[in-house]
Amino acid sequence: MGSAGGDPATLPAVLLFRRPGGAFSAALRERFAVLDFRSSGEPLPAFLAKAAAEPDPPRAAIVVGGGSVVVDASLLNAVPSLRCVVSTGAGVDHIDLAECTRRGVAVGNSGEVYSTDVADYAVGLLLDVLRQVSASGRYVRRGSWPMLGDYPLGSKLGGKRIGIIGLGNIGSRIAKRLEAFGCVIHYNSRKPKDSVSYKYFPTVHNLAAASDVLIVACALNKATRHVVNKDVMEALGKDGVIINVGRGAIIDEAELVMALKEGKIAGAGLDVYEHEPKVPAELFAMDNVVLSAHAAVFTEESRSDLWAHTIGNLEAFFSGQPLLSPVHADSVGFLNQIC
Amino acid sequence: MGSAGGDPATLPAVLLFRRPGGAFSAALRERFAVLDFRSSGEPLPAFLAKAAAEPDPPRAAIVVGGGSVVVDASLLNAVPSLRCVVSTGAGVDHIDLAECTRRGVAVGNSGEVYSTDVADYAVGLLLDVLRQVSASGRYVRRGSWPMLGDYPLGSKLGGKRIGIIGLGNIGSRIAKRLEAFGCVIHYNSRKPKDSVSYKYFPTVHNLAAASDVLIVACALNKATRHVVNKDVMEALGKDGVIINVGRGAIIDEAELVMALKEGKIAGAGLDVYEHEPKVPAELFAMDNVVLSAHAAVFTEESRSDLWAHTIGNLEAFFSGQPLLSPVHADSVGFLNQIC
Repeated sequence: MGSAGGDPATLPAVLLFRRPGGAFSAALRERFAVLDFRSSGEPLPAFLAKAAAEPDPPRAAIVVGGGSVVVDASLLNAVPSLRCVVSTGAGVDHIDLAECTRRGVAVGNSGEVYSTDVADYAVGLLLDVLRQVSASGRYVRRGSWPMLGDYPLGSKLGGKRIGIIGLGNIGSRIAKRLEAFGCVIHYNSRKPKDSVSYKYFPTVHNLAAASDVLIVACALNKATRHVVNKDVMEALGKDGVIINVGRGAIIDEAELVMALKEGKIAGAGLDVYEHEPKVPAELFAMDNVVLSAHAAVFTEESRSDLWAHTIGNLEAFFSGQPLLSPVHADSVGFLNQIC
Repeated sequence: MGSAGGDPATLPAVLLFRRPGGAFSAALRERFAVLDFRSSGEPLPAFLAKAAAEPDPPRAAIVVGGGSVVVDASLLNAVPSLRCVVSTGAGVDHIDLAECTRRGVAVGNSGEVYSTDVADYAVGLLLDVLRQVSASGRYVRRGSWPMLGDYPLGSKLGGKRIGIIGLGNIGSRIAKRLEAFGCVIHYNSRKPKDSVSYKYFPTVHNLAAASDVLIVACALNKATRHVVNKDVMEALGKDGVIINVGRGAIIDEAELVMALKEGKIAGAGLDVYEHEPKVPAELFAMDNVVLSAHAAVFTEESRSDLWAHTIGNLEAFFSGQPLLSPVHADSVGFLNQIC
C-alpha cells in the first residue's frame, strides 16, 4: 500500500458513504482525498454536485453494504467522473450493475471477507433451532426448570438433509461444516458445480421437497426475490426448518410467518428480514424461531480484513489493475454471494 | 433380541429405576420380568427387600443416568443377587464402581449413544456464546433493534484455540466438528492419545493457559471434581470462554459465577450445573452466558437408539456375553464419557 500521509491535493479523491471516524477512516485518509457524505451534513444531491465540481473530481466511491445509498443512474449521472464503486458488503443489491456495466464503471464487493463468519452463523442458527438452545435458555432464565421439569427434547442434526440455496463462497463453507456433523448436503444454484459431489436440484422447489432444512445463502436479485414462497414451504413440509443468512426478501416473509403460525413448517432461524430493522412481531412469541439482528456477517476479528480488502480494491483500481473482487452484471442471475 | 411376550415367570427379573410407561417399558416387559420401583409406590428399602425375597431374585438393574438412585454398597447389600447394573446415562458418577468391581458386578452405560448429540450441542453453545445468538435474539424480541441500532459484533470461531478436557467419545467428536470451522484443537486427558495429532497438555491448567476456549467433555469423578477452578479460569484469561456439557461439579460453580461477574473470563455456555435444576440466579442477567437445561445429551432421534442399546446390554449379560458398553473401575480416573 502507498506510503502514509501524502499531500491531500495529490491523493486520488474517493466518495465515502459510511459512518465517519475510526481506524478505517484514518487508513483511508492516508491514501485518498476522502469526500465524506455523512460528515458533510448536506443532502445527497448537494453533496454529489459539490463533489462533481471539484478540480479533480472523485473517480471512486465506497458504499456501505446494505444500501443506505443506492448506486443507480441518477447517482452516476450526478458524478460522471465515477469509474469505480466498492461495496463494503458482499451483496450488491443496492448497486445497479447493468447500469454500471453499460457505463464501464467497475464494481467491487467485499469478496470472501464475510464468508466464514456467515457460514459459522448459519450453522449456529441451525443448531439453535434444532436443539432449542435459545428457547431452553429463556426457559432457564425465567426460572421454569425447577418448577416445570426438563425442557422437551430437540431434534438431531446428524443425518438431516440440508438444502443449500446458493453454493458460493458462503454456501460451500456451510456445506463443509455440516458434513462434519454427518449431514447430507443438497443444493440449488444457477447451474451444477463440477467441483462438488453434493446432489444438485434445478429448482428451489425440488430442493425443498428433498430436504429437511433449507438454508438461504444466495444473493438477492430479481431471480431470487421471494424464491422461497408458499409452495416451497409446503414442499419442505411440517418437519422442515428454514435458515436465512442471505437477505430477508429472498423469502416471502408474510408467507413465512403464516407457515410458522399454522405449523406448515417446524421452525426457522432468521438473521435477515424484508424490512430491517423491523421484525414481524408475531415471531417474538414463537419458541421454534431463532431471531437475530443481521449479525451473521461480521465479527470483531473480520473487521480489519474488511478494511484491508476495501483499500486493496481501491488501490487496484487507481493503479489500473483489475479489482480484487470484481462483481459483474452477468454473474448476478445467481451471485451466491451475500452480506 | 429375544422373542416378544414370553411367560413372565420364565423371564429374567430386572429392577427398573426410571419413570414407568412408554415404548421403552413395553419393550422391557416383552423380554424381562420388570420390578418397577417408581410404580411400586414403596420406599426404596422396602422395594429392595421385596425384590430380594422373590423366588428368582433380580440379577440386573437399570438405573437412570444422573443418579436419582445411587448404586452403592448399601443397595448391593440389599439385593445380593444383583450381578449387573446398566445405566441409561453415559456418566456413572452415581454408581460406586470400586464396590461393583470388588463384588464382580458388571456395570454398563449408554456407550456412544449420546456422543453425537452432546458434541453437536457443545458446538452450538460455543457458536452461541461467541456470536451472541441468544443475546441478540433477546435484543430483537424486546424490540430494541429499531430503537438502539445494531447489536455489538461477536467473536470469530475460526482460528480459536479450543482446549477440550476429556478426548473420549464426545470430546473427539467435538474436535472433529471444530476442525471444520478452522479451530486449533488442544486437549487434556489422563494420557496422550496416539490416534490424534492434537496437542496434548498434561494438566487442565496448562491447557487453559494455551487456549481461548475450554470445553468440559470429561466424566465427573474424584479426579475431575472442581478441576476447572479459580486458577484455571485465571489461566484461561479475560478473553476466554468456558463450555460445559459434562457435569456441573467439574467446574467450581461459585468461582465461575465470580469470574464472570468480575470479567476474569469473557463468557460461558452451560448446559449442566452443580445443583440441577437449580441455576445460580446471578447468571440470568448476563448476556455473555448461554444457559440451557441439561439438554445436550439427547434428541428425539436418539431415544430409540438408547432403548435398543440398554436392552442389548441386558441381553448380553443374561446370555453370558460381555456387555456392549462395559464400564470398569480402573478407567474412571478419567473416563471421558459423560451423560
